[in-house]
Amino acid sequence: MASEAELKAASEKYIPKDYDPALYKLRHSFAHVLAQAVVERFPQARPTIGPPVEYGFYYDFDLDVNPTEEDLQWISERMRQIIRENHPFHVREVTAEEARQIFRDNPYKLELIEGLTRGQDEYGNAAGGPVVITVYQHDGFIDLCRGPHVESTGHLDPDAFRILQVTGSYWRGDSRNKMLKRFHGTAWASAADLQAHLARLEEAARRDHRKLGRELELFANEPIFGSGFPMLLPKGATIRRILETFITDYERKAGYEHVYTPDLAKKELYIQSGHWAHYKENMFPPMEVGDGEELVLRPMCCPHHIQVYKCKPRSYRDLPVRIAELGTMYRYERSGVVGGLSRVRCMTLNDAHLFVRPDQIKEEIAGVLNLMKKAYADLGIQDYRFRLSKHDPNDKEKYVDNPEMWAKGEAMLREALVEHGLPFFEAEGEAAFYGPKIDVQVKDVMGREETLSTIQLDFHLPNQFELEYKDSDDRPKRPVMIHRGVISTMERMLAYLIELYAGAFPVWLAPVQAVLVPIADRHFDYVRHLAQRWTERDFRVTADLSSARMNAKIREAQLQKVPYILVVGDKEVAAQAVSVRLRTGEDLGPKPVAEFEALLDQMNRSRSLQLLPG
Amino acid sequence: MASEAELKAASEKYIPKDYDPALYKLRHSFAHVLAQAVVERFPQARPTIGPPVEYGFYYDFDLDVNPTEEDLQWISERMRQIIRENHPFHVREVTAEEARQIFRDNPYKLELIEGLTRGQDEYGNAAGGPVVITVYQHDGFIDLCRGPHVESTGHLDPDAFRILQVTGSYWRGDSRNKMLKRFHGTAWASAADLQAHLARLEEAARRDHRKLGRELELFANEPIFGSGFPMLLPKGATIRRILETFITDYERKAGYEHVYTPDLAKKELYIQSGHWAHYKENMFPPMEVGDGEELVLRPMCCPHHIQVYKCKPRSYRDLPVRIAELGTMYRYERSGVVGGLSRVRCMTLNDAHLFVRPDQIKEEIAGVLNLMKKAYADLGIQDYRFRLSKHDPNDKEKYVDNPEMWAKGEAMLREALVEHGLPFFEAEGEAAFYGPKIDVQVKDVMGREETLSTIQLDFHLPNQFELEYKDSDDRPKRPVMIHRGVISTMERMLAYLIELYAGAFPVWLAPVQAVLVPIADRHFDYVRHLAQRWTERDFRVTADLSSARMNAKIREAQLQKVPYILVVGDKEVAAQAVSVRLRTGEDLGPKPVAEFEALLDQMNRSRSLQLLPG
Repeated sequence: MASEAELKAASEKYIPKDYDPALYKLRHSFAHVLAQAVVERFPQARPTIGPPVEYGFYYDFDLDVNPTEEDLQWISERMRQIIRENHPFHVREVTAEEARQIFRDNPYKLELIEGLTRGQDEYGNAAGGPVVITVYQHDGFIDLCRGPHVESTGHLDPDAFRILQVTGSYWRGDSRNKMLKRFHGTAWASAADLQAHLARLEEAARRDHRKLGRELELFANEPIFGSGFPMLLPKGATIRRILETFITDYERKAGYEHVYTPDLAKKELYIQSGHWAHYKENMFPPMEVGDGEELVLRPMCCPHHIQVYKCKPRSYRDLPVRIAELGTMYRYERSGVVGGLSRVRCMTLNDAHLFVRPDQIKEEIAGVLNLMKKAYADLGIQDYRFRLSKHDPNDKEKYVDNPEMWAKGEAMLREALVEHGLPFFEAEGEAAFYGPKIDVQVKDVMGREETLSTIQLDFHLPNQFELEYKDSDDRPKRPVMIHRGVISTMERMLAYLIELYAGAFPVWLAPVQAVLVPIADRHFDYVRHLAQRWTERDFRVTADLSSARMNAKIREAQLQKVPYILVVGDKEVAAQAVSVRLRTGEDLGPKPVAEFEALLDQMNRSRSLQLLPG
Repeated sequence: MASEAELKAASEKYIPKDYDPALYKLRHSFAHVLAQAVVERFPQARPTIGPPVEYGFYYDFDLDVNPTEEDLQWISERMRQIIRENHPFHVREVTAEEARQIFRDNPYKLELIEGLTRGQDEYGNAAGGPVVITVYQHDGFIDLCRGPHVESTGHLDPDAFRILQVTGSYWRGDSRNKMLKRFHGTAWASAADLQAHLARLEEAARRDHRKLGRELELFANEPIFGSGFPMLLPKGATIRRILETFITDYERKAGYEHVYTPDLAKKELYIQSGHWAHYKENMFPPMEVGDGEELVLRPMCCPHHIQVYKCKPRSYRDLPVRIAELGTMYRYERSGVVGGLSRVRCMTLNDAHLFVRPDQIKEEIAGVLNLMKKAYADLGIQDYRFRLSKHDPNDKEKYVDNPEMWAKGEAMLREALVEHGLPFFEAEGEAAFYGPKIDVQVKDVMGREETLSTIQLDFHLPNQFELEYKDSDDRPKRPVMIHRGVISTMERMLAYLIELYAGAFPVWLAPVQAVLVPIADRHFDYVRHLAQRWTERDFRVTADLSSARMNAKIREAQLQKVPYILVVGDKEVAAQAVSVRLRTGEDLGPKPVAEFEALLDQMNRSRSLQLLPG
């Protein structure tokens, strides 16, 4: 039998690669302390499993009462007491027979022990070797557990945890099993860290694009469309239209040629491209349409843009050819993981594929980086970092098997980042199946990273489709492909911007830029006249002609985060003016109509992120 | 046995409803005269069937030689002779036994006779009653035929027909059968009519959008995408983008609210809407995505826009609600009938649905008619007529069964047309399954009609989805839906405009508005500078920097139907000018750059249909 020190050292291997080891151990220990307190409060509770998760831990119990607020307070207080008593965590190896004896009253633990004897971990997965059964004990509480834990409960900060909620959860995640009670906790190294996390949670809730999407009437998820297929309501659609015009204008001026290609194709296209071999699990099932024809919704636009390139002979003088599209794509995800705008099954990407000569790669990557910087500046995206996304040489299923190609591509992208003086980090297993990428990573309030822009280098698809151009020596050469997206999918960018601005969009992006608020019915005509005149000039202005009172109308406009609130009474009508208030509450007083028009015009043109020029 | 006169009178019923009877009879007679001549030229030929078709007739023969030009001339000359000899057409009823005796050497006719005895017509379809077998004879040629024919060959004009081509055609259209020779002829009442038709054919070929689409690089059909899924190449995509911006701008100013809704939905949505019952054969097959969920590509946007209407409570003051979208839809057609841009399986419609109070129907229909007139004027569409498209009361499968609703809707649309003083015709069996329509019909060069705009009145879907608004009396009322499309699908409008302008688009629609032609290499820099400057100003200008000579460049630009060709030499560089030629060949001489910019600006703003301001 191994010693306690040996067992503790061995248990370190259970800490996931991307998890801070100190936090993992303390959260796992908090889970045991919670379990002890729960069992003391509810002696009939049967503990099942209780792992660390992102930001904290949970523990599932078979428990037939709903804990009250008072119960949770008692449990929290008892946890603090256990922590202060500084009980050491002891581990020892036991035989299956001993384990069965210890947990004889707990059918869940007995089921886990049977799994362990069959070489399965506590989630029912193959553990990949013989399983040593260990139990961890602190104070009077003993648990079937592989560890690791902190040395003793005194290593935990009694003010650095919080029980957040209790929800229902099926044993082993299977709805045919009994519903258990899951206690969710967040836990940190210090009270300060806990407070910072709770503040971030609150801020994230305030900025949550699903909540704001509902409140500001930007989008909706209708169950009848199927999960992952949100619809953009008029205000959300307005922002999308502005984004689309904004980025395609930039692209056109940068020499991109836009196309419209079909959202689907015969299955054969994806067999040739390699998507069928490497990406099939993300694709919707084919539709059989007779005569043996199978059509598949596209998961990416690259094979389509390749057809555009191929539709006429190309010479070295024609390159680079930059084919762009607001390309709609469909990715199959299980209905469980989709929601809001950030995980959808149908998305429209600001997509482009550059077909370049090898000597043009550097300049074209620089061009994409430039375009990206301009777009980000306009959109007010300031906090981002670069990731060099490499393949995983051990994953032959996900990646094209061509080590030389990967080495060359990854080296070229690394060089581009270095030359542009852009700080970056490298990540294995994040490449596309056909080539390495530079990804631009942004963070949400919770610190979760996502990719907004991407530049991908591809030597693979040009081979698959035998792409060619006639070189200056009159001989056929193979172009290189650069896949790139600058403002991501319209869905993801919209979600990102909603959270970045907490719904208070810059004037040039705001779906409603100004609301006219007439003080009395006799001002309605003047207000209607202004609204009509400004709509003709493509300002986005509405008039609040409801029967509500002025202050209620102003409050409503502020809640809707409309940049300018324009109050109109007798004086304003007489002076051909509007009284301008900002959504922040600031009152600028009366301004002549022409002056307000000039202001709005300037804000639209300059894409200012402020409410006033300067 | 019936008399000859009785048989001739009875045979009139075989003339299709929408076919001119005189033309039908003479074309059918031309077919027999052709058959006589063919059999005289090729005694081994076995005639099979030879019906009138649009613009003429064909006749299929089992014939194992390929007719030469000389053969066709001989046949045409012999036909003219037979016509001049003025042989009467005689008909008589025969028994099956007599018929078998007459056609004993022709296995095709024998097969037809067996079909007739089983109550099938010559296409193998049930004839719907006992079949009387008749033979028609003129001169020495006798044919198994149901008629009708002209009285005698002298009623035909010997200069009013032409044999157009001979193609292969399977017996009974089945590729497992023998390949026959099909002689195609066009035939008319007079030589003048024939000449007019041949001129139209030539004009149609010149304007054919498939041919021009290829030559002007507007779109392409890639077999790998599947038939009916064209892609728009950069130039075609530019026109589509202009059209989309053009119509949505008009709509926004007319109070429409644009949305983006998903291209698919759960099958249940279409069951509720009635599409599954009345429109299923036009829909793609559902995709099963697990958990019993079936997703279907949408054939129309109406059920989606209904979800937008339903996503919040509506009051009588909110109506009309005008929901618009450039809505992509998918319609299943057998791969045989699709082609070019006019018959596609995926299309993007300038779609909108107006949710109105009953008292608003008239005004809203007037609003749509106004929008349509403005759009047509800008696009240069002048030749159109209105069709009141009604249901077919006998077709319970295609149409919702609610006679009262149909009567009311059709009466309201008729009234609207009358009130607006718009001449119209009525057509049964052309309504949507849920309600009657006003369709705006245009004609192509060949005189074939198609629908560009449509206004549909719908009392059905609001019931199916239980739509409501709160009326001024605080009680729930049901809105009426108006479905409308103004510039049709982007695909159909693009095809129509290509043919309308034979590819020579008005300046504001032209994918390339001007080509810069430098005379020598030393003018390249100036030309590049102008191209860049104008691209920044959103003019669509390219520079021809190839090594071709000036005249070749000008010719190429004219072939590409580019409105302005701007020649640049030493004088132009010195004077900061360009020498402007029109695609028509007219040379305007040198113009200062600023003057050309002002011209282009004015043409874009005014949407003029001319090449110069009028």
